[in-house]
Amino acid sequence: MLTINQERFLAMMREQAEIGKTAGGGLSRPALFEDDLKARAWFQEQAQAHGLEYAQDGAGNQSAILRSADPDAKTLLIGSHLDSVVDGGRFDGALGVVAALEAVLVIKEAEYALPFHLEVINFTDEEGTLIGLMGSSAISGLLTEDALQNPRGGRDALLAAYANIGIDDASVLAAKRDPKTLLGYLEVHIEQGTRLIDQQLNIGVVDAIVGIRSYALSFIGEAAHAGTMPITKRKDAMRGVSHFISQAFQIVPRHYDPGVVNFGRVELQPGAYNIVPAQVELGMEFRHGDMTTFDQMEKSLLQAAEQAAGQHGLTLKVRELGRAAPSPMAEPFLKAVESAADALSLSHTRMLSFAGHDAQALAQITNSAMFFVPSVEGISHNSQEFTSDEDCINAANVMLQSILQLAESS
Amino acid sequence: MLTINQERFLAMMREQAEIGKTAGGGLSRPALFEDDLKARAWFQEQAQAHGLEYAQDGAGNQSAILRSADPDAKTLLIGSHLDSVVDGGRFDGALGVVAALEAVLVIKEAEYALPFHLEVINFTDEEGTLIGLMGSSAISGLLTEDALQNPRGGRDALLAAYANIGIDDASVLAAKRDPKTLLGYLEVHIEQGTRLIDQQLNIGVVDAIVGIRSYALSFIGEAAHAGTMPITKRKDAMRGVSHFISQAFQIVPRHYDPGVVNFGRVELQPGAYNIVPAQVELGMEFRHGDMTTFDQMEKSLLQAAEQAAGQHGLTLKVRELGRAAPSPMAEPFLKAVESAADALSLSHTRMLSFAGHDAQALAQITNSAMFFVPSVEGISHNSQEFTSDEDCINAANVMLQSILQLAESS
Repeated sequence: MLTINQERFLAMMREQAEIGKTAGGGLSRPALFEDDLKARAWFQEQAQAHGLEYAQDGAGNQSAILRSADPDAKTLLIGSHLDSVVDGGRFDGALGVVAALEAVLVIKEAEYALPFHLEVINFTDEEGTLIGLMGSSAISGLLTEDALQNPRGGRDALLAAYANIGIDDASVLAAKRDPKTLLGYLEVHIEQGTRLIDQQLNIGVVDAIVGIRSYALSFIGEAAHAGTMPITKRKDAMRGVSHFISQAFQIVPRHYDPGVVNFGRVELQPGAYNIVPAQVELGMEFRHGDMTTFDQMEKSLLQAAEQAAGQHGLTLKVRELGRAAPSPMAEPFLKAVESAADALSLSHTRMLSFAGHDAQALAQITNSAMFFVPSVEGISHNSQEFTSDEDCINAANVMLQSILQLAESS
Repeated sequence: MLTINQERFLAMMREQAEIGKTAGGGLSRPALFEDDLKARAWFQEQAQAHGLEYAQDGAGNQSAILRSADPDAKTLLIGSHLDSVVDGGRFDGALGVVAALEAVLVIKEAEYALPFHLEVINFTDEEGTLIGLMGSSAISGLLTEDALQNPRGGRDALLAAYANIGIDDASVLAAKRDPKTLLGYLEVHIEQGTRLIDQQLNIGVVDAIVGIRSYALSFIGEAAHAGTMPITKRKDAMRGVSHFISQAFQIVPRHYDPGVVNFGRVELQPGAYNIVPAQVELGMEFRHGDMTTFDQMEKSLLQAAEQAAGQHGLTLKVRELGRAAPSPMAEPFLKAVESAADALSLSHTRMLSFAGHDAQALAQITNSAMFFVPSVEGISHNSQEFTSDEDCINAANVMLQSILQLAESS
């Protein structure tokens, strides 16, 4: 059985971790600026030093390609991203790129006859310094002129980033791939959670990336003197909100597990110690991997909000802010990953990905799948993020075996 | 039985309501600036036109005095304040001043032989544009040089206000009265609540002005990814806060009625839709009229906060922000007000004042009491504030009869 070159692989992991290294042992590589540019140069060097074909597309995605003998073969994309959040960790994204690179090198050295082109890809701006899932969205044809005019990082930052690698709006939009040329996409990533460690499992086979919906819920009551207005006569917006939040944390774990809900923003009007709050705007975000359950969960949460408001004499205004559907992963790819894990005697389970990943963009146009390896304490987007050498090696070996499984079945 | 001159009294109420009148039918008379200066000029005119002795003390308090024949007599202070909050109503404070003025005029016209000097007082800055209870605190010796250096409205505003009426720090501190010269203080005010109207009563006899305590409670957990961190593993500060608020609204009405609690400020860190809140600072203010119960209430609330924090894996940091003791009113004065109401066949009940008033400062140095007349819908600090002519007339008649009761028993 082919296995990876552990020494070379761990050396590549260490090398990339030096680029943009922070005092705490993590790294900072915001997309398309200084340290990410160095990481990109390192990726290009690795590709070229090992005799792989190197390319950069109009959205800045970098590829290291091992061609099939058949020029008309489809392409299997494998990879992740080398960019990071500010003060991020050294595994989030990077592990997926380096594991893919190592798998390709082993296949190349073994002179294995691939029935597809194998393309290691480093997606641009997964983390959203500029747009978020920028490179994978571009390939999947999900970006619009409008999105490029109003990026979350600001238009000026985007234009500066473009200049750093010689791309522009037109080239980004032209980076869209023809789905007919693609076999699929496979990615390994750290879990960023504790489910694998809690269950002492090696591999999490992601069957869907959760959908995310977000709302601003305004609970509207009446301002009143906090002394003279008796509690029973108030229309206290904060009381209604507290009641609703407590309800939501009963409803979700009881009926929609493993779905999650979060209340990360609360704004009171008028916001004074001695005035009963007239209005509270509550930010609610919730996630689930199954569309039917997701819809039920949404209905339950909005009903509970309506009831809590009514019970305290408040009115509720509901404003939808965002809506991303769950992305189911491709079953044949999940089976390939499971066979690979079995072949390596690694334990595995199916699970949802509660974080967004490039695979959710790719899933719109081609068979896509992901798998996770354990994150110590689930720490993520933090310099303390950690995955053991053993689990990193498992990541690369499962990637290698999964590719071979897909090759056998193609 | 002496009664007030209703026509003259209502005319004075209407006249003062023209000064600083707002489009909504309320008034704006922030202390010691433009429209309050006009209201003060009006007060001086009324005093002098009706042959009362006029004086302004070093804190800007204005007095209209009817002397006893006995030069060594003590002084009964009666009154309230003509200043208002921005966009306030036309009864808050003004009713107490005008009712006191009318009562004195009736006594003067009747040539009633008073055993005390009767001094109608318009206290400076009750509402706190500058300091809050400024005039009554000055008379009661409660102001310090420090307080004058750091007034809530800012030092510059205070200095500008001083200049408008020719006073300074030294004169304010020197306005302190010798308690031996005082018989007591009596004030009528609108209720700013709905207890009288709900019970269809005419007069609320205030047996104490509540104490107020305020805290900033920091619930400290851990920030986490709102997707990947399962609900059961979070240390979610907002969940703990919601639990505590819901608990507090069960505890207070059940065990500390008629005490009140309010949560008017909530600040989340980091405050993002997709991050589990690491920390919430919750502003809590609570009020009660009885010191022993107030202490128990404080203990219960802080215990509940501690428990809610513990239950959700959070730590609690408690910061005390303010502490004002309940001010019990003087029993003989309350009896005088009750006898006066009985004589006028007006129904009455004892109640707490949940708002602060000048009487709480005066209570520190002399027998003080207050009574309330109904406020429609309890609306206050608002142009919609309203008390009927009939209730205003009751206010002035009860004030008159209470003075006479105190005169008889002196």
